[in-house]
This record gives sequence, structure tokens and C-alpha cells, in this order.
Amino acid sequence: MTTALIGLDWGSTHLRAYRYDSRGQVEEKRAFPHGIRRLPEGGFAEAFAQAVQHWPDVPVLACGMVGSRNGWQEVPYLDTPTRVDRLAGALTHLEVPGGRVIHLVPGLRDPQRPDVMRGEETQVVGALAFSPSIGQRGCLLLPGTHSKWVSLRDGAVAGFATVMTGELFGLLMQHSILGAQLPADANDEQAFLRGVVAAKASDSAGALSRVFSARTLMLDGVLAPAAVADYLSGLLIGDELRMALAAGWLDARTRVQMVGEGALCERYLKAAAVFAIDIDTAPDNTTAHGLWRIATEAALVSPTAAA
Amino acid sequence: MTTALIGLDWGSTHLRAYRYDSRGQVEEKRAFPHGIRRLPEGGFAEAFAQAVQHWPDVPVLACGMVGSRNGWQEVPYLDTPTRVDRLAGALTHLEVPGGRVIHLVPGLRDPQRPDVMRGEETQVVGALAFSPSIGQRGCLLLPGTHSKWVSLRDGAVAGFATVMTGELFGLLMQHSILGAQLPADANDEQAFLRGVVAAKASDSAGALSRVFSARTLMLDGVLAPAAVADYLSGLLIGDELRMALAAGWLDARTRVQMVGEGALCERYLKAAAVFAIDIDTAPDNTTAHGLWRIATEAALVSPTAAA
Repeated sequence: MTTALIGLDWGSTHLRAYRYDSRGQVEEKRAFPHGIRRLPEGGFAEAFAQAVQHWPDVPVLACGMVGSRNGWQEVPYLDTPTRVDRLAGALTHLEVPGGRVIHLVPGLRDPQRPDVMRGEETQVVGALAFSPSIGQRGCLLLPGTHSKWVSLRDGAVAGFATVMTGELFGLLMQHSILGAQLPADANDEQAFLRGVVAAKASDSAGALSRVFSARTLMLDGVLAPAAVADYLSGLLIGDELRMALAAGWLDARTRVQMVGEGALCERYLKAAAVFAIDIDTAPDNTTAHGLWRIATEAALVSPTAAA
Repeated sequence: MTTALIGLDWGSTHLRAYRYDSRGQVEEKRAFPHGIRRLPEGGFAEAFAQAVQHWPDVPVLACGMVGSRNGWQEVPYLDTPTRVDRLAGALTHLEVPGGRVIHLVPGLRDPQRPDVMRGEETQVVGALAFSPSIGQRGCLLLPGTHSKWVSLRDGAVAGFATVMTGELFGLLMQHSILGAQLPADANDEQAFLRGVVAAKASDSAGALSRVFSARTLMLDGVLAPAAVADYLSGLLIGDELRMALAAGWLDARTRVQMVGEGALCERYLKAAAVFAIDIDTAPDNTTAHGLWRIATEAALVSPTAAA
């Protein structure tokens, strides 16, 4: 089957390239460390040339930080509320050395908070393709370094919020009095759940009012030094769920679907059980699927082939 | 007038030495960078020898991290609730090379949270000496790297809580996507107050639900890059006040007195005004005064001289 599209998921720390057949199946995947903050000598052009080397000259669609102010070319955000099918009509074209054209997906901006995303909008498209009904009234959770809580109403992205849970965990473990010089994560489920419960019990004060307990519980001998990482992970993930409820990003009537990587999603599922929040999980290849859907709507690939 | 006492305020990153006359006035102050994590070659003994060099052989009283597990000698905590006059009865004696004896003040431990302090208990003694009435029903706020909120009831420390506001600010400015590579603090009061207001508006969700706005407001051009530090400072100090109200560390009936360094206290006062919290300020030499009071109660100095 012939190659119909190349998709690029190009973030701060990674570059993933997908080669699709004419039915939208990914025939080949490539991964590089060449995020926009880790470019090789030769910069964007060299990273791109490596990513698509020996692949046919078909349309290229890219999402992520490559379209940010520090990216290859800045792409204006689409403001929420917006239907995601508007993304296909708002692509920016970038002609690159050698003559290829890259079509860049815009990020989304929630002007109410304000908040921004680049790359996750394509995951949202992919997730909605897998389960369209959640778009009527639901919430997508994309956990990670910068977790995103995306509120969906009547088929549109109503708004969203970023929580820096993963980055904060890394900062506390690497650089703070709580975690620096401690042994690595012991994968201690009891310590993790203790952290989740502490976050829940912090109620409206929030888990920052208790984060120092990671140290005092260790001094008390309640937490082994190797379990501090899991306790902090539980405290911060628990706090993210606590604040999502407090901020109204989800409520008892809201379906929540999570999109992301396996081990991290497992942690969120365990924490959600403590809060009695039901979370469905979506397949993890939502970016690749979202890129294909946007390309189809933008007529970068032929509608008949995409059927 | 003769020297009656040497006091040491010996923390993680500083060592301050006070020489008192027989009426409790500080006649000479010395400051060294020799906190317990920054000892000179020769370790504790050498740092101590430098601190008291040429001073007479009078009783020595020390407070702070010098009595911690990683200090010169570990001193057991006193558990709350406790009257602070019990500190004088719980000193640990450490004989040091050369024959001097150092009396070490215990820290306090709140077994309910759990939480711990070392050094701040001596500030509490000093602050209560200046204004005894707050001990009946009040709250002492000691802002800093690890802010302490100390709840006072019927002349005793009922309990306390640590909030890592200063450390978290440092982590976010030095290492996170929000602050790394930005110019230093511009002392932009408007940005600071914007952060305080955002923390207040975060309500029970808490300011971690909005901390990413430090980046998006800058991307939007609302915050100048040099103003991000002040915005984050306002957001985190405001969140500390928000959580103090939410956790019940203070309420409308609670007098709050703040003990600490000038510029930082100014920030807390400005933030408190946004929350309509009245905060009194205490003199900043509470540690030196607290050491003298504890020495007097422990009869390390003669009661007549202390009168």
C-alpha cells in the first residue's frame, strides 16, 4: 500500500515521526531525542531531514512545540471554546530546505484562565475519534509533566487547565530538602496511597499544606527513605484530583477519560479510586490517530483513501 | 559589664553567635556561613572554636539544626502541646574539645500532623516575651524558606505547620519552565499583587491549579519576563495565606503576629491586606532574646543578673 502521509509529534524533548498508508494505518514509526530544546547540529532542518529520510514526498503534518514561539515557526493559537474540527482549517504552512512543506497544527488557548496547549489538541482529536460521545459532556485528562484537564461540551473544547504535577514532582525529588539525596523510587504502593489519602484529607487547604510531611514521616521512621518518592507522587497526583473536583473541572455527572502512558495512568487510576472518581482509559496512540484525522479534514490526504 | 552567656543560632546555612552581658543585652554579634551543611574543614569543633574565639568561658546555649540528626548531637524533640518554659528543662549537654559545654535547645514536634521545628521554638520564646498576651489565643507566623504557622492556646504551643513557600519559590525560579532563564526579580508590586489575587481567587482549588499562568501570562504579554518572579512570589505567599485560612490555622478571632526579616515581612503584609487579614509584626531579634530567656529559666545565668 502506498504512503499517504507523514505525521510529526514534535515536542520540547522528543520528535516522533509516523508514516501512514492510505487507510491511515501507521506503517512505520521513528523516535528521536530531537525535541525543540534538544536539536542536533543543523537545527530544525537537520532534525527534520533525519526524521523523514528515505520516506516518499507526501504531505507532512506536525503538531507540538515545533509551532511555538521557540519552535521552527510560530503558529497562532485557536481560542476556546472551539470545535476541534476547526484545527484543520487553521494550519500554517512552512516550506523547508529541499522543497517539502510542513503543515503545522495550531495549539489551543483558553483565554479565560489564560492557559495554552500545543500537541495535546491533537491527542484530543484522536481521543474524540475513538469515543465521540464524551465530546457532548466530559473531561479528558492527559497526565504528565504538565497534566491537562480538558473540558468538553456539545462537541467543543470548552476550556482547559494545566497542572504541573510531573514537573513539580521532579523538582521536589531532585532539588528539594524532601527528595534530594534519597534513593530512587521503590514502587511502594502503600506509601503512594498514604500520599493520596493525605492529599484528600487536606481538603480545601490543599496538599502544599502537608508536603513537608514527606520529610517528617521519614524522620519519624514511618516512611522508609526509598518510599518518599512514592509518597510524594501520591500526594501530588492526589492533589491534582482534589483540585480538579474543587475547581469544578469534573463532578459526579462528568465522564472522565484519561489518555497517556501506561505506568503513569496506573497511578492516576489508583488515586482516582481513593477519591471515588471513575476514569476510563483511552488508547495511547491518540496523537498518531489525531494527526491522521486532522490531515483528512484538511484534505491533505484524499477522502476516499481515508474512508 | 561582664559577659554572662554565649548564645548560638546554628541552622542549616548559618551560624550566628551572641555575647550577652549580665542583663541580657547583646554586646557583640558574629555571623558565619558555617551552617551544619556548610561546615569548615575541622567540622563542628572548628566552626564552634571560630564562633567563640577570645570570648570568656561562660555558659553556651545553642538552638537550631545543630541539634538535629545531621547536627553535632541529636536532641529529642518536645511534643506539642507544650508550654515553651518546658524547653529550659529539656536541654541536652554536649562537651566539646577544649572543655566547654554547649547546652542544646530541643526542637518541637507536632505529633498530629506530624511536623517538626528546630530553632523556631526559640523565636517563639522570644516573641512571647515581647508580647505575652498572644500566647493565650493567637498565631505566630515565621515566614521563610520553610514558613511556620504556630498555634498558641492558653500559654502553650498547641501545634504548628510548615509550608515550604520559600523553597518552592526558589525551585520554580531556578529550575522550572516558569522561571528558569528569566531575568531576576524586578520588584514589580503590581505583578506581585496580581499573583496574590490569583491565589485568593483559586479558592479551595489552590494556587497550584493556576501556577502555569505565570508562563501563559508572560506569553500573552501581560507579564513582562522580569515580573514573573514577583507574580510567582505573590501567588505562593497568597496561597500560604489562603491555606492558613482553609486549614483553620487562623480565623477572624485569631491574632496573628509575624516574626522575620524586613523585606519578606513586607511582602506578607501586602498579601495579608488582600485577604483582609490583620498581622502585627514582632521585632526581628527574637532568637537572641529567646536564647537569653531559656538560659535564664534553665539557671545558666543568675536570676538576679537577669532581673
